[in-house]
Amino acid sequence: MKKEVVIGIDIGGTFTKYGIVTKDGKCLKDDFIQTNTYTDFDAYLENLHATIENTCTSIEEEIEIKGVGIGAPNGNFYTGTIEQAPNLKWKGIVPVVEKMKKYFSGIPIVLTNDANAAAIGEMIYGGAKGMKDFIVITLGTGLGSGIVSNGKLIYGHDGFAGELGHVNVKINGRQCGCGKKGCLETYVSATGIKRTVFRLLCEMNIDSELRNISYNDLDAKMISEAAKKGDPIALEAFEYTGKILGVKLADAIEHTSPEAIFLLGGLAKAGDLLLKPTKKYMEENLLPVFKNKVKLLLSSLQEATAGIMGAAALAWNEINNNK
Amino acid sequence: MKKEVVIGIDIGGTFTKYGIVTKDGKCLKDDFIQTNTYTDFDAYLENLHATIENTCTSIEEEIEIKGVGIGAPNGNFYTGTIEQAPNLKWKGIVPVVEKMKKYFSGIPIVLTNDANAAAIGEMIYGGAKGMKDFIVITLGTGLGSGIVSNGKLIYGHDGFAGELGHVNVKINGRQCGCGKKGCLETYVSATGIKRTVFRLLCEMNIDSELRNISYNDLDAKMISEAAKKGDPIALEAFEYTGKILGVKLADAIEHTSPEAIFLLGGLAKAGDLLLKPTKKYMEENLLPVFKNKVKLLLSSLQEATAGIMGAAALAWNEINNNK
Repeated sequence: MKKEVVIGIDIGGTFTKYGIVTKDGKCLKDDFIQTNTYTDFDAYLENLHATIENTCTSIEEEIEIKGVGIGAPNGNFYTGTIEQAPNLKWKGIVPVVEKMKKYFSGIPIVLTNDANAAAIGEMIYGGAKGMKDFIVITLGTGLGSGIVSNGKLIYGHDGFAGELGHVNVKINGRQCGCGKKGCLETYVSATGIKRTVFRLLCEMNIDSELRNISYNDLDAKMISEAAKKGDPIALEAFEYTGKILGVKLADAIEHTSPEAIFLLGGLAKAGDLLLKPTKKYMEENLLPVFKNKVKLLLSSLQEATAGIMGAAALAWNEINNNK
Repeated sequence: MKKEVVIGIDIGGTFTKYGIVTKDGKCLKDDFIQTNTYTDFDAYLENLHATIENTCTSIEEEIEIKGVGIGAPNGNFYTGTIEQAPNLKWKGIVPVVEKMKKYFSGIPIVLTNDANAAAIGEMIYGGAKGMKDFIVITLGTGLGSGIVSNGKLIYGHDGFAGELGHVNVKINGRQCGCGKKGCLETYVSATGIKRTVFRLLCEMNIDSELRNISYNDLDAKMISEAAKKGDPIALEAFEYTGKILGVKLADAIEHTSPEAIFLLGGLAKAGDLLLKPTKKYMEENLLPVFKNKVKLLLSSLQEATAGIMGAAALAWNEINNNK
């Protein structure tokens, strides 16, 4: 009998990673192509398909591809399109699923945004196994989120639900890439904590090794390393970031009352530096009825392949739901 | 053939209203008893049942009771209990559904909080008919909410989802009855706008007829009437209330991406005075992908019977789902 697999595809601004994944979450093989060298989506897709074919051929076992799952910025589950993604070179509305059908016909092809895919990955292969109500927050350059309620991802009326990166922290607050001001991701993300460090370098007089690094050179890992060495500015930046995140997670809990919230991505690697203040301010801002009930956890997915596994889980989830 | 009906019961702090409601939303008869004269829940329930029996007997047609739906403050759908409701005299956890079974055996008895019941009422009998993703906001003494996603009410992990009245507007903001500070309902509700008027009376020097009314005498209707006559403090209070509500509705949209948001309850009667600024600030704070998509509407349920109709809809919804 052939081994049943799906293709999990994780489209990012720089790389497109993919993997050939079994139902029980074994990634038989994975690889990637460049995303940003293709201004033409058709040429990109042709090359992506050819590379995937090569990878499939190189697998020793005989495989049967049962579906394709795709996670992409601004991916819309309902329409199968990527819409106005700021970090991709393909402008406007790209009919990804429709074009993909040329290469993979007769099997389910499903698309959603990367954070939604991460949430399904967490549900099928990660720490949310068996949970029906949870939220996944991805903390990369921006802040993404996927909300699962009653065992199903919330896509909302138009397929774009779960944009917690753009809830309002402060009226007329920090300028966001989306055109608004004061969005959560301008405070809580790898970029957000960097902005906070620069505010603190201005407001506080205390010495800090971060005073020697330019804005463009500074990254979240440096802030995290400085904090571990006790740097007061870095520590204060994590406290502030956790405060804003904690308050906003309390808000999210007041919307959908999840069993757990999972953090994933670059900034989440800071671990307790971020988790402790986040948990403290989250609890402080919860209604009594929610206090000490909601787990705040790090994702149990491997970061390097989380995108692939999320996309694969999306495909398996679709196949299971259609049975 | 007997007419199939459900009993819709709307438990409030002062009155318990109920109605005998057909599947197509006709309320054959309704009545009420006092809630707050009973410190003992068993005595209350015995009297409520006896009164309902009388009402049923007084209906000329022969009826068959198919279910009971109950909306109550802090009502938990999963457990069938009212838990720590601040405005009710029964303290702790009251096993409403279990006790109700003594009087109505062999038929579904369902309980949820009043705002959730209002949302189901809107879905079955009101303006949300045919919608799968929407939010209902009740603006009374406090602010309640019910969120419907993918055609189902979001109850969350523990049955308490949809507490938008307690999302955070301002860290260390106004003191809330729940024990927290800065909750949305301290700004946006009949009480919230009154608090805003008193801040404005302090901060602004301009004449206002509201300067002659004490805090305890002032109500939302007076503010609304003053605003209609052009009173500057009252107008500014509506602008501010709409601003806070608009920003928070934008946040809610970023969570679950609804097709529409319905406003219901005393403060919603102010109509455009509240709707216009709310819509303006809501749109300003939405991601481009959500702009000009989400309808902001007044509930189409009659306010006097909205609670009864919501509770009845809850029962019919349960009966339909179990078929």
